[in-house]
Amino acid sequence: MADTLTTADLDAIYDRVNNWGKWGSDDERGALNYLTDKVRSHTGSLIKDGASISLGHNLPVAPDVETPNPAHHHMLVSGDCLDNTGIPGYQATGDYIGTQVHGMGITHIDALSHMFVRDRTYNGFLPSDVKSTGALRNTIMSMSEGVVGRGVLLDVPGALGVDFLPPEQSVRTADLLAAEKRQNVTVREGDLLLIATGRDARRAAQKGSLNPFTEGLAGLHPECLDFLHERKIAMLGGDGISDHMPFRNIRNWPFPIHQIGIVSIGLHLIDNMHLAPGLAACNVRERWEFLLCLNPLRIPKGTGCPINPIAVF
Amino acid sequence: MADTLTTADLDAIYDRVNNWGKWGSDDERGALNYLTDKVRSHTGSLIKDGASISLGHNLPVAPDVETPNPAHHHMLVSGDCLDNTGIPGYQATGDYIGTQVHGMGITHIDALSHMFVRDRTYNGFLPSDVKSTGALRNTIMSMSEGVVGRGVLLDVPGALGVDFLPPEQSVRTADLLAAEKRQNVTVREGDLLLIATGRDARRAAQKGSLNPFTEGLAGLHPECLDFLHERKIAMLGGDGISDHMPFRNIRNWPFPIHQIGIVSIGLHLIDNMHLAPGLAACNVRERWEFLLCLNPLRIPKGTGCPINPIAVF
Amino acid sequence: MADTLTTADLDAIYDRVNNWGKWGSDDERGALNYLTDKVRSHTGSLIKDGASISLGHNLPVAPDVETPNPAHHHMLVSGDCLDNTGIPGYQATGDYIGTQVHGMGITHIDALSHMFVRDRTYNGFLPSDVKSTGALRNTIMSMSEGVVGRGVLLDVPGALGVDFLPPEQSVRTADLLAAEKRQNVTVREGDLLLIATGRDARRAAQKGSLNPFTEGLAGLHPECLDFLHERKIAMLGGDGISDHMPFRNIRNWPFPIHQIGIVSIGLHLIDNMHLAPGLAACNVRERWEFLLCLNPLRIPKGTGCPINPIAVF
Amino acid sequence: MADTLTTADLDAIYDRVNNWGKWGSDDERGALNYLTDKVRSHTGSLIKDGASISLGHNLPVAPDVETPNPAHHHMLVSGDCLDNTGIPGYQATGDYIGTQVHGMGITHIDALSHMFVRDRTYNGFLPSDVKSTGALRNTIMSMSEGVVGRGVLLDVPGALGVDFLPPEQSVRTADLLAAEKRQNVTVREGDLLLIATGRDARRAAQKGSLNPFTEGLAGLHPECLDFLHERKIAMLGGDGISDHMPFRNIRNWPFPIHQIGIVSIGLHLIDNMHLAPGLAACNVRERWEFLLCLNPLRIPKGTGCPINPIAVF
Repeated sequence: MADTLTTADLDAIYDRVNNWGKWGSDDERGALNYLTDKVRSHTGSLIKDGASISLGHNLPVAPDVETPNPAHHHMLVSGDCLDNTGIPGYQATGDYIGTQVHGMGITHIDALSHMFVRDRTYNGFLPSDVKSTGALRNTIMSMSEGVVGRGVLLDVPGALGVDFLPPEQSVRTADLLAAEKRQNVTVREGDLLLIATGRDARRAAQKGSLNPFTEGLAGLHPECLDFLHERKIAMLGGDGISDHMPFRNIRNWPFPIHQIGIVSIGLHLIDNMHLAPGLAACNVRERWEFLLCLNPLRIPKGTGCPINPIAVF
Repeated sequence: MADTLTTADLDAIYDRVNNWGKWGSDDERGALNYLTDKVRSHTGSLIKDGASISLGHNLPVAPDVETPNPAHHHMLVSGDCLDNTGIPGYQATGDYIGTQVHGMGITHIDALSHMFVRDRTYNGFLPSDVKSTGALRNTIMSMSEGVVGRGVLLDVPGALGVDFLPPEQSVRTADLLAAEKRQNVTVREGDLLLIATGRDARRAAQKGSLNPFTEGLAGLHPECLDFLHERKIAMLGGDGISDHMPFRNIRNWPFPIHQIGIVSIGLHLIDNMHLAPGLAACNVRERWEFLLCLNPLRIPKGTGCPINPIAVF
Repeated sequence: MADTLTTADLDAIYDRVNNWGKWGSDDERGALNYLTDKVRSHTGSLIKDGASISLGHNLPVAPDVETPNPAHHHMLVSGDCLDNTGIPGYQATGDYIGTQVHGMGITHIDALSHMFVRDRTYNGFLPSDVKSTGALRNTIMSMSEGVVGRGVLLDVPGALGVDFLPPEQSVRTADLLAAEKRQNVTVREGDLLLIATGRDARRAAQKGSLNPFTEGLAGLHPECLDFLHERKIAMLGGDGISDHMPFRNIRNWPFPIHQIGIVSIGLHLIDNMHLAPGLAACNVRERWEFLLCLNPLRIPKGTGCPINPIAVF
Repeated sequence: MADTLTTADLDAIYDRVNNWGKWGSDDERGALNYLTDKVRSHTGSLIKDGASISLGHNLPVAPDVETPNPAHHHMLVSGDCLDNTGIPGYQATGDYIGTQVHGMGITHIDALSHMFVRDRTYNGFLPSDVKSTGALRNTIMSMSEGVVGRGVLLDVPGALGVDFLPPEQSVRTADLLAAEKRQNVTVREGDLLLIATGRDARRAAQKGSLNPFTEGLAGLHPECLDFLHERKIAMLGGDGISDHMPFRNIRNWPFPIHQIGIVSIGLHLIDNMHLAPGLAACNVRERWEFLLCLNPLRIPKGTGCPINPIAVF
């Protein structure tokens, strides 16, 4: 596929990878349907040494370049008020946590109601299915029973022999194939695929700060959508947002991985993962598959959820 | 042990089950230390048919008798504003979720900073370690790498041949032993133990409403603390709050399971689980163990976290 | 006018009191236009003894029957963290305040975007003028320069010789005229009219609790809309919500004062005022007019604002 | 007084202007006590032409350099959900507003619990009087009955013949005296004194952006504290924070106007006022006094409140 794509090219990809109706006209789970109980029944063998590793960032509570709208963590009762209930002996503390769900910094899942293309979400649902009082269709409740499956981490910088991809460089299908080969792992139906671009390494190389709005993020070339579709992955995650930042200059398709992945394929995305610890854990084991547990909160009308993805080796 | 306990009895239990210093003077993980990688390495075999089932309630967003302080789910951009960015083709929605962490209705984990006894949290940390700006010790970050382990569900109403325990009835150690025997399962070191009292069945029997503040909740008799300690469980969860509501009339020990479990044993608690679906899943399989995934968010100074616990069978 | 009105009667009132277009097709201030600088220039003489009295309730922070969705007041830094900045000598505390704007308990102003009739707000603006991202028309910014004017308090229970109106009793036009006569005050163009039904006295008589949802609130008979319109008041406030609770059984017109007052007349409403202190202050002075200051926050896309109305005598 | 002050100089000012005990050992109103009913009774004559002008900024809802922690304005029900209640004819919208109280951008009042010096707030209250559950002393409830009084605006840039003060320039007492003389106004007991440094003009000259953290703010020289004390003003407001940003390099006294003004004098401060419209209104009238209405919300345990200050001419 050409390096530079046109709107017509993207239109064609959108049509080519489309899963609408595949699991029924009422389906709201999209590619999650690939992760069947049967697929999951084979994941127990992924647990070998039992190490458990988070692939999520700390929830940020101070504004910074990656999270201009950070979470709010407010203590409600602290150690200075242990007697505040008046019940002898009862000494408790508590807090409040709140956050915007999406953005460029918080590790979170995008539900299928998060993205529209030409006024439709996955499977053809309408703008009126996402009300000001909450989403009615394609909500994060598609994952209400959790998402546990085989996680596969493709280390693209590793395959290319670099520490991280520069922001303008796109991950190509050939890179994914090279990573599979180098890592001796094959992405298959029902997988939870994680693609590393080295964002954490790049941030570290920049003294700990990386402004995605001004400095950009590496992302997947839209040709990868065919790969994602054909391999029948259940979800896609990344250390960036899978798409480039700033958005690509293709009319109507500024964020093609989000737009086509979420809306046409029905792919829930995990943005802003902390993949550095996962890369280290995989490298030391020379193993790039693991049990991955993603348990978003049960938010009935939610368009997504912050999460702490856990890999078990 | 006597049905009715005195303050001196509870003082004695507190001392008897104490784990302070056991894992070092700086330890903040408590009984989670029992859930080693080695223990976890044996959990893969728990996944058999691959079914994945949530043991959490929907996050409530309207005040009700169980959650007078519900979560706030606010849409930030809905389907009526798809063009709000001005970027051609970019049509996204988003929302905000916030909640108090504790209480009688929301499924959540209590970190070890949630509870003090005589001005100390687990392992002797001070009131000044839980500041108005956040907890500094014994935070939910003890679970930052997730909690995946063997879940064991003891069905106490099942063992007693009832649908649910009335609020004034305490779960006794003998009941736990009876449940183990009936279910042919043995609670062992590193387990994530869940004890059902039938709260969901009781709520359903009351037409869907159960006010824990006025109608009470069944809870564990404090003698069970010895059982929990001796079996070396890693965590304790329940459909209630493990303690009775309203609190027991023992001076200085209104909530002994919280007070002694969290502070002395170092036991993280899971309150307000939705165990009805778990009971059904276990009954149909005649199997009461499963892989349990608890992945609280990484809240650096948090005293707990709402969660969606996922059981994989 | 008949005690019991029909939908057709209300339709007729809606048409009769309509101010759309009166101040131009783009007007978003409605009856506030009556409160001109000239009108305000005469209000200085209302200040006589200089007493300043709040007509607002404390912002509630715990759920109760009047405010099931109370405000959130969260400390961010308290006296236990005075050295948290690390700047020698700098010892500051701070907090966060948040709240739903409307409801039955919090003293607040309804902007003209708060209410629609047949899919239109005041002056004909559209549902699409109140987006999920905020209101674009008829916002609280109509009051961005504040509202200072002549406040007039009509004591309806006083006129009727009772402490408070029972919830089923409607304030009639004759009651307003009787109150004017008894109090020797005439409601005139540009006034900020406050009508007391005795909610505070009724709450006190009920031991401090009054559930507006189950026990109801007294309200204005719809015939009063003609009075409000003819007298050209600038705003209407009350100790209840001006309308009855629960809503009246007139098809399509459940809350006629809100529906017709806000939408047709263009009347900003002040709900849930604390009028008891105002009644006391007026009675002792035998004076029922005062300078009233209503300064909602400048919330650019807001549908209203909690306020603390201040009367200066 | 010398341009450069030492810690000892500030210690001396702190002692010299101290009002502790002046209004009783329980007093929590501080200099607000100067604004008596009698003083207020003379303010009616300030209303001449009746113009009403806001001296507050719009509540910011997007992070920017002045408000890295902006307010949260969330719609709860918008025009896309007018039928969401199911009550025929009832079509209402609503929203949520929340915000941190303090900071460098939002127009707000500092209550006397906001600032400590050597572990004491105004009148000697303790750190334990500001709990993690809220302030118990010196709260914003000192203003629960509102603050209405004579506002006086001193235009320091005007007196100095400049558009705005550069950040490093301090307002000196001589500047205040010069402004009084030029404006033909005398600051007197019970006044609400506003001192302009030209922040709005400076921001405008910088194309609309002024980062107070990196570019600094002009502030009052600590010698002005004697002026403020001697003139017995009731409150102090400004377009900056009255203090310099970044803080001055005097050990233990980084923010002397806040530290000594709030704690020793008992002066409530208004930070981040939008004085440009006030300056324009005063200039055109050649009148620098007006009725000023400050009505913070009744937040029972609050350390301050965002406000919309209204000047009536």
